[in-house]
Amino acid sequence: MSLLAVGTVAFDCVETPFGKHDDIIGGSVSYLGTSASYFTDVRMMSVIGEDFPEDTLEFFRSRKINTDGVKRLPGKTFRWRGKYTDNLNEAQTLDTQLNVLTEFDPAVPEAFKNSDYLVLGNISPDLQLNVLEQVPSAKLVACDTMNFWITGALEDLKKTLTKVNLLSINDQEARMLSGEHNLLHAAKGIRKMGPEILVIKRGEHGALVVTDEGMFSAPAMPLDVIKDPTGAGDSFAGGLMGYIARKGSWDLESLRQGVILGSVMASYNVQDFSLERLKTLTHDDIRDRYQAFSELTRFGDTLDIL
Amino acid sequence: MSLLAVGTVAFDCVETPFGKHDDIIGGSVSYLGTSASYFTDVRMMSVIGEDFPEDTLEFFRSRKINTDGVKRLPGKTFRWRGKYTDNLNEAQTLDTQLNVLTEFDPAVPEAFKNSDYLVLGNISPDLQLNVLEQVPSAKLVACDTMNFWITGALEDLKKTLTKVNLLSINDQEARMLSGEHNLLHAAKGIRKMGPEILVIKRGEHGALVVTDEGMFSAPAMPLDVIKDPTGAGDSFAGGLMGYIARKGSWDLESLRQGVILGSVMASYNVQDFSLERLKTLTHDDIRDRYQAFSELTRFGDTLDIL
Repeated sequence: MSLLAVGTVAFDCVETPFGKHDDIIGGSVSYLGTSASYFTDVRMMSVIGEDFPEDTLEFFRSRKINTDGVKRLPGKTFRWRGKYTDNLNEAQTLDTQLNVLTEFDPAVPEAFKNSDYLVLGNISPDLQLNVLEQVPSAKLVACDTMNFWITGALEDLKKTLTKVNLLSINDQEARMLSGEHNLLHAAKGIRKMGPEILVIKRGEHGALVVTDEGMFSAPAMPLDVIKDPTGAGDSFAGGLMGYIARKGSWDLESLRQGVILGSVMASYNVQDFSLERLKTLTHDDIRDRYQAFSELTRFGDTLDIL
Repeated sequence: MSLLAVGTVAFDCVETPFGKHDDIIGGSVSYLGTSASYFTDVRMMSVIGEDFPEDTLEFFRSRKINTDGVKRLPGKTFRWRGKYTDNLNEAQTLDTQLNVLTEFDPAVPEAFKNSDYLVLGNISPDLQLNVLEQVPSAKLVACDTMNFWITGALEDLKKTLTKVNLLSINDQEARMLSGEHNLLHAAKGIRKMGPEILVIKRGEHGALVVTDEGMFSAPAMPLDVIKDPTGAGDSFAGGLMGYIARKGSWDLESLRQGVILGSVMASYNVQDFSLERLKTLTHDDIRDRYQAFSELTRFGDTLDIL
C-alpha cells in the first residue's frame, strides 16, 4: 500500500573518521523514501533548490518513488554540515543553511491525499501537523523529531503528537521530551501525549518498542566498519514504515519484524556515505542480514536446566 | 559441577536516587557466589575482617555455598563507598578502604583445588593469576576486571589474560584495554590476548558475546525501578558461570542461554540494594524472567514479505 514520506532533501557535508565528503545527497526523506522503497510504493514530499541534481530525482524514480511532491524552488537546496568523531553515535552540527526549506509549502498533492500510510520525517512540528491534517484517511501516521524541536517548538510538537500513532525518537530525546530518565517512565509519559506506539532509537545499542501489547528490544548489528551514521534513524524508520505499509498491520508481532527490517536498513546505510549503500542494495542482501539478526539474538525458548 | 568463585566481600555504603544505605553487604564474590548458587555448587574464596557478620556467612551457607575459603583476619573488612546519580550506569567511587584485603592470601584450600570451573571476580590481576595457577584442572576460567587494573596493572592483567578462557568486561573497559573504539575491533584485540570468549557488558544496553563461532547480543530488561546497580556485573557473571558449570558446556548455543540467565540475575539484583532481592529469589522467578526476555527479543524467523 502507499506510503507518503515527507521531510527534507539536502546537500550534506559530512566528516567522519572514514573521510570527508562535501555536497553529498542527504536529508530525512531521501533516506526514509529510499529505504521504504524496498518494501512498498513511496510518494515523496519535499523541497529542493535550483542546484539540486536531476539525476538524484531520477534515482528516486528508479526506485519507483513518486517524486511529484518534490518541489523545485528558486534558490539553493537545504544544506547541513556535520562531523562525527570517534563516538559515532553523536553528530556535531557545524552549519545549517535552510535556504529553500524556509519556503516549504506543505500542500499535499491531490494524488497523494489518499495515501494509506504517512511518515513525517524530521521537519518543524507545525509543518508535520499541516501535512497530516491533509491526509485524514491515513491508517497510521508515523513521525520523527529531534532535540531542536523539543527545546524550540515544544507546544507545536505536543499538538502534532496528539495526532501521531507512531513516534520514533532517540533515547536522549525521549528523556528530554518526557522529563523522565527511566526509559519506561519516559515511554509512559510520551505515549500519554498521543502516540500509541513509541520506538526509542538507541544508536549502536539498537531500538526499543513500547506499545499497549508489550515491548520489543532489537540490537544494532555490530559492524566492522561504520563509515557514516548520517541517515541511520531515517533509514530505520523507512524500513519499519515500509514494512508496515506492505503488510498492512502494526500489532506487536508485525512491529517486531518491522523494527528488525528497519535495523537491517540502518545497518546497511551506515556502511557508506550518503545513499551509496542503499542504492545498490538487493532483496537478497536484506534477507541475509535479517537472518544475521536472527542469529545474533536467538536463544533457546525453554530453559534446559532448573 | 563445582564452581570456585574468588573475589571481594565488602561493606558498601551506597547512595542512589532511591536511597542511601550504609554498611550493607557487597563485594564481587558476594554477588557472584549468590547468583551462581541458583545453578550449581559454589565454593567461595575471599577475606573478611573481625567486623563481618556471621549471619551473612550463614546466608551464603544456606545457599549451599561452601565458605571454607572465606578467611577471617584481624582488622576491618574491605569497604567501598559509592554514589549513582540519574545515570545509573556509572558509579562514582567516593571512598575505598582496602583494610584486610591487603592481606588476602590467595592460597586455594586443598578441597577446592579440584574445582571444575573457576570465576575470578574483580581483584588485582596478580592475585587472579596466583589463584588460577593453583587450579590447573579447571575446565574453564572466567575473569572480570575493571578500569582501575587496566590503567594501573596492565602488564599483570595481560599475563593473567593469557590463561583466561572467558573475560567479562564493560564496553568502555573493552575500548580502554584494546585501544580500539569499534567494539568488533576491540573484541578481536582482546581475544588475541588470551580469552577465546569475550563478554562485553553494556549496562542498561545488555551484553554482547563474541567467540570463534559467532556473536550473541542480549538486551537488558527495561525496568520500572532500578534501586541500586551495584553488583549487576557480578550477578550477571554468576548467572552465566553458574549455568556453564551446571550444563558443562560453553559453545555458543550454551553461552546464549547462559548470558540470558546472567541478564535475568542482574535484572533482579538491581531491583533492590545489596543482596536483598537475590536473597528471596526462587527458580520460578528465574524461569518467569527468562520467558520475559524471550518475549522481549523474539521475532519471526522467516520474513513474511519480500
